[in-house]
Amino acid sequence: MSELSEVRRAVDDGFEESVAALQRVVRQPSISSQNIGVRECAALLVEMMTDIGIDARVMETEGLPVVYGEIRSARADAPTLVIYNHYDVQPAAPLDEWTHKPFGAEIVDGVMYGRGTTDAKGNLLCHLRAIAAFQQAGVELPCHVKLLFDGEEESGSPSLPAFVAANTDLLAADAALSFDGGFGGSNRPRISFGTSGLLFVELRVRGAERDLHSARARLVENPAWRLVWALNQLKGPDGRVMLDGFYDAIRPTTALERKTLETSGWDDAAQQADLGIGRFLGGVSGVDAYEQLLFTPTCNIAGFATGWMGEGHKTVLPGRAACRLDFRLVANQDPDAILASLRLFLDAHGCEDFEIESRGNIEPARTALDTPFAEVIVEAARDVYGGEPDVQPTIDASGQQGVWLGGLLGGIPAAGTGIGPPAWRGHAADEFMTLEHYRNGINYAATIWTRFAAAHAAARGQG
Amino acid sequence: MSELSEVRRAVDDGFEESVAALQRVVRQPSISSQNIGVRECAALLVEMMTDIGIDARVMETEGLPVVYGEIRSARADAPTLVIYNHYDVQPAAPLDEWTHKPFGAEIVDGVMYGRGTTDAKGNLLCHLRAIAAFQQAGVELPCHVKLLFDGEEESGSPSLPAFVAANTDLLAADAALSFDGGFGGSNRPRISFGTSGLLFVELRVRGAERDLHSARARLVENPAWRLVWALNQLKGPDGRVMLDGFYDAIRPTTALERKTLETSGWDDAAQQADLGIGRFLGGVSGVDAYEQLLFTPTCNIAGFATGWMGEGHKTVLPGRAACRLDFRLVANQDPDAILASLRLFLDAHGCEDFEIESRGNIEPARTALDTPFAEVIVEAARDVYGGEPDVQPTIDASGQQGVWLGGLLGGIPAAGTGIGPPAWRGHAADEFMTLEHYRNGINYAATIWTRFAAAHAAARGQG
Repeated sequence: MSELSEVRRAVDDGFEESVAALQRVVRQPSISSQNIGVRECAALLVEMMTDIGIDARVMETEGLPVVYGEIRSARADAPTLVIYNHYDVQPAAPLDEWTHKPFGAEIVDGVMYGRGTTDAKGNLLCHLRAIAAFQQAGVELPCHVKLLFDGEEESGSPSLPAFVAANTDLLAADAALSFDGGFGGSNRPRISFGTSGLLFVELRVRGAERDLHSARARLVENPAWRLVWALNQLKGPDGRVMLDGFYDAIRPTTALERKTLETSGWDDAAQQADLGIGRFLGGVSGVDAYEQLLFTPTCNIAGFATGWMGEGHKTVLPGRAACRLDFRLVANQDPDAILASLRLFLDAHGCEDFEIESRGNIEPARTALDTPFAEVIVEAARDVYGGEPDVQPTIDASGQQGVWLGGLLGGIPAAGTGIGPPAWRGHAADEFMTLEHYRNGINYAATIWTRFAAAHAAARGQG
Repeated sequence: MSELSEVRRAVDDGFEESVAALQRVVRQPSISSQNIGVRECAALLVEMMTDIGIDARVMETEGLPVVYGEIRSARADAPTLVIYNHYDVQPAAPLDEWTHKPFGAEIVDGVMYGRGTTDAKGNLLCHLRAIAAFQQAGVELPCHVKLLFDGEEESGSPSLPAFVAANTDLLAADAALSFDGGFGGSNRPRISFGTSGLLFVELRVRGAERDLHSARARLVENPAWRLVWALNQLKGPDGRVMLDGFYDAIRPTTALERKTLETSGWDDAAQQADLGIGRFLGGVSGVDAYEQLLFTPTCNIAGFATGWMGEGHKTVLPGRAACRLDFRLVANQDPDAILASLRLFLDAHGCEDFEIESRGNIEPARTALDTPFAEVIVEAARDVYGGEPDVQPTIDASGQQGVWLGGLLGGIPAAGTGIGPPAWRGHAADEFMTLEHYRNGINYAATIWTRFAAAHAAARGQG
């Protein structure tokens, strides 16, 4: 890989410029939740991308814009990588907790402080600076690169699904990569290959047309009781979800995934202390607990409201009751199918009149650890950081955008990783990025691309 | 009853003075919820009571004061009647809905308008004016009269239970009578002989020490699910309350009570229209529905709160869940025993850690319709108003103070009635009392006392 060595030299040579570029972007606030500076930051990025030959533009969504860019490789048979990142940031508040200027990008002893230095402007810039390094080194890009920079990630990416659905041809690629966040406890990258899915619903039940004096409970059905009974039928104390077909599509944990969990350093006591509990559900422990966390679905009561829970002695017979359930799903459960199954279940249990409002729907996705793309990312991390990265076959949360994007784009292999330093203070005061982590991050991106193209060529050679 | 005829003549002769007395009391606002004029009204009543020979005083409670008065009969073996009433009123707001002055006691075409004209100053004054009439007629009072005037009824009488418990000797009597409110649909008094009891509790369950990301629901117990399962065990879809001994102490409906229900004019369609429902619980109808309303207990979910039910896509694993249950009880269920049974039930179902907060506790009470005191009230109503009064063996709500007072004073016979005109606009603008209903009310009080003493003498003669 002598070409890659030349690129790494160019990364070093151009690093002062890379630092300046990151400072420039951090100094442009882009707080999506308050719509502060987001469009200005998008315009700045397009300008910076265009300067290094990326075909870049601002693309409108139903909310804040996406910044999109493409740069093609002249190599024959180069594969395409689509990279997800976001250019919006969290608010800086509370301001009095900062010891550095939140948008100052001040550098002290090799550490740059500021909102977005890691999350995710530092991560994002790695790709732009890797492209610049290839050019500076006179090395042709190993793959076509498509860059999708979300402007609403910190607000839950509400417009992203529709944007992706409307642009599947534009975004078509051989693999998807998310660069966001940072390391966990160790000084090596986390890499995850899956995301949980989600079905989030609200159930609403009506009784009398208004709350009544509860003496009338002798004659008038209480919708809260009906909801309690329906929930109990949906999931009893044994924890099994009674929806028809709920468990059918679940992909079993592979031996390789289990082995990865076994080497993860999972620590029951630390986890329980963090969660404020004394035992895990079902009494599981050790790697079994970790497997339960990552590879099993849930049906969770996320909220329940009925009647009067405020001050005073108000005894009412509620006229309505509602609850919210979230089903955390695992590959390959289908949230749409489960929603349909929930409707059938309620209808079959005398709850035809229950209203179901779907409030969120995310497909689970999981790239198998033995796919070439998974190996590419792990090997690239070993190259750049030495030792073993912190591999997660999937994450417990839902909607990790890079991985989920892989699912949306026809199930192409996908991974999520991030280059921020340990304890980088995400969403908190004095968020930071070290210059060393930033430099490594640029190399990590360049290495991933190079290995990705090589693996693709090898597969073609075999095929 | 020639003595009673003389008293009635005195009621007529002194009626102008009775009207002036009611106006004087109505013009003194006494809004307990805002503590406006309550003590001034208490002092006024003590003055008016003292003027007609009642041994009257203001008695402090933990909240607003009680006005207490006694007047004794010189007749040998006169029985004692304790009368419950309240001198506080609802606020007048919203003021712009009144066409008369809320505290003006203005009389137009034989109707007096103002807050408290019926509820309950008009009712209260009947007793004072009946005493004055006996005196004016030169007729000795037929019974000893004890007058307990609550200053907090419109605020739920929070201090009354402790006051009564601390003064059982003072209040000791042969029977208890409540005069409050007014007629229902017909132009004849309602008389009720029972009140439902109440046990009102809050159940609280804890899980993790804070709300967690709901992805963790794979490992951490959800207190909302535990509460749902416990509630389902406590009362399933068949409606039966599973607490040990819950139904044991219930006094069956007597033939006379059932007969009273049958002549009550209960109307399914009217009730259902009022409640906004299409059927009653369990499909009951007609007199069976009315009996279910008055003679069966409930276990009602009055509130349930957990997690997040506000705006947005917040999927949490709640750290705590709580619900409120009210058990509407019937004679002779014991709220204390049921509270103890609930604790045992939860302990036996793996819910030892559930916290129970008792938020209210009212004993049910029911005076049998064939007791002499019940007959006294019904006969008195027939005498004064002609035709049949609207008799309720019990009411569905809890804590009707006069009846409940009977229970607190050792289970003496007790009844509740009221003399306000139909549609008297309780708690609303332009509350009113007609002069005719007021005059009849004074006669009703005098007749009850006279019949009460006669029944007592007859019972002694037989005994």
